[in-house]
Amino acid sequence: MTEVNRQMVLAERPTGNVDSNTVRLVEGVAPDPTDGEALVRVKYLSIDPTIRTWMNDVPGYLPPIGIGEVIRSGGIGEVVASSSSRYRPGDLVFGMLGWQDYAIVDGGAATAQAIPAGVEPPVALNIFGVTGMTAYFGLLDVGKMARGDVVVVSGAAGATGSMVAQIAKLKGASMVVGIAGGPDKCRWLVEVLGCDAAIDYRNDDVGTRLRSECPKGIDLYFDNVGGDILNTCLGKLAIHGKVVLCGAISVYNDRSLRAGPANYINLVGKRGRMEGFIILDYLDRFVEAQAAILGWLFEGKLVHAEHIVDGLEHAPDALNLLFTGGNTGKVVVAV
Amino acid sequence: MTEVNRQMVLAERPTGNVDSNTVRLVEGVAPDPTDGEALVRVKYLSIDPTIRTWMNDVPGYLPPIGIGEVIRSGGIGEVVASSSSRYRPGDLVFGMLGWQDYAIVDGGAATAQAIPAGVEPPVALNIFGVTGMTAYFGLLDVGKMARGDVVVVSGAAGATGSMVAQIAKLKGASMVVGIAGGPDKCRWLVEVLGCDAAIDYRNDDVGTRLRSECPKGIDLYFDNVGGDILNTCLGKLAIHGKVVLCGAISVYNDRSLRAGPANYINLVGKRGRMEGFIILDYLDRFVEAQAAILGWLFEGKLVHAEHIVDGLEHAPDALNLLFTGGNTGKVVVAV
Repeated sequence: MTEVNRQMVLAERPTGNVDSNTVRLVEGVAPDPTDGEALVRVKYLSIDPTIRTWMNDVPGYLPPIGIGEVIRSGGIGEVVASSSSRYRPGDLVFGMLGWQDYAIVDGGAATAQAIPAGVEPPVALNIFGVTGMTAYFGLLDVGKMARGDVVVVSGAAGATGSMVAQIAKLKGASMVVGIAGGPDKCRWLVEVLGCDAAIDYRNDDVGTRLRSECPKGIDLYFDNVGGDILNTCLGKLAIHGKVVLCGAISVYNDRSLRAGPANYINLVGKRGRMEGFIILDYLDRFVEAQAAILGWLFEGKLVHAEHIVDGLEHAPDALNLLFTGGNTGKVVVAV
Repeated sequence: MTEVNRQMVLAERPTGNVDSNTVRLVEGVAPDPTDGEALVRVKYLSIDPTIRTWMNDVPGYLPPIGIGEVIRSGGIGEVVASSSSRYRPGDLVFGMLGWQDYAIVDGGAATAQAIPAGVEPPVALNIFGVTGMTAYFGLLDVGKMARGDVVVVSGAAGATGSMVAQIAKLKGASMVVGIAGGPDKCRWLVEVLGCDAAIDYRNDDVGTRLRSECPKGIDLYFDNVGGDILNTCLGKLAIHGKVVLCGAISVYNDRSLRAGPANYINLVGKRGRMEGFIILDYLDRFVEAQAAILGWLFEGKLVHAEHIVDGLEHAPDALNLLFTGGNTGKVVVAV
């Protein structure tokens, strides 16, 4: 094979949104797989907020992406050449493929898994990928959501948030309130996703709306955004209320840490719990969540939305959508 | 009985430290116990930071103390008259007696319990009262401290902190670091309490010291102070690190909420947990902790220190000691 391999590499560390100085397109030649490896033609990329955190030069749960390295990213591709018994040409596989045309996968660190038959790749990236897994384990395992809970989720029109809202309803939450930006997203949350109420943080006073929608307080708040909304929700917890910290998209682009939530102190009076998690810790339980999600999908109980951006070269714009709120549902790049 | 009953009542809500405008001494006559009640001569008062929070007009886990009401406070007294089969004259009892010479107790809301034989009342108020209970259940039940944990405790020379540090060692912590103000307290923590290290927050850089004392991070941080020290410890958590929120003495005197801990975001990357609690939720399990503590006490494994302030009229000064750090160990007023 001497196919051209376009790669998007980190040229310099961003200080805010990603732009043309941050990521550069370079061209090379697709590598040949050696023993135990396979070459995968990347077809779709999963665009997740955490990619932005990997661009910073700070220690995290994974090492930062190095300058000159391909942007790390989940994706789905087709095996085009294989020297491994695990992969056959034509297989569709799922793994950390990166922002490039061709990726090498193996049975070790760069392993890839098959995607369920009958599910379109962008849908698989959404509900069976880190998005769906994050929603499922964050809500049920970290948050230990109980039947009857009043659940509030921010970033509710985003990929993870929209799954959280629906799984909460499916698991018997007494009330699900989604927080999102703008009337269109809020209408979608109520009319399509089935949220009991939606709060438009751009036009509503979040605290006032929460007080009227959740007069007994919030049993479980699933936080995707951090910042003021986290602080407001901490101030409205019910006794034994829980906050699941999934991320803090409102602050990932900041150069320095903002002030934290002053209302953390409410965790004392309310005997509350705030807990973070990293979905990679659940890798060996993904199959459990995927089975549940596949069941809901085939029963028609799960709405999913994918926001497709065409062209590898537009992956940085796709990533920025997450921070400007330009998407509804999962952002996927069709390479 | 027509005994004079001195009472310290809330005259106006404080804005910082408590002073002579906040609490006023009034004199009345000791009431007669009616059916099911007993009259108790108050001998010792338990001075706890939470009393300061009850003076604010904000909803909490208990209602605020009303203007003109006796300051709510735990204490130990002697039954002097009884119309109840639960109490006999001469009994030493333990309950919410308030800042006054005489209190009425009953079998309901104002119940009082016997104190263990052979234990001096100030010691009982310390290690068998809310102080000891808070340390025991906060560390072991909320924090779920495990053998081998690296434990850090702030306010470590205070009543709760000094119990936490010792119980952590008794339960097999691999390292216990106490944080306190001033070299004398720090020496006491290491030489008398048995802490592995002590950090003087007035003279040391807490972050630097923690990095060198706990190079693998903090497994459990027991927070008595809030503010900068909480933020620093959040930034030094180990994977799956836990923060037990007991209170925030550094901010109770503030008029408005300060910024929260920016490093809360580290709970995501470290899969950490921050949880608050209110010791009154453990009332029905006090006997379990009291048995364990009594055992350690009689085996000579528990150091306890009481800081006695003489005279009911000095109760406000005693309370202020907690905020200026003027005490080592439990502050008790001898009425």
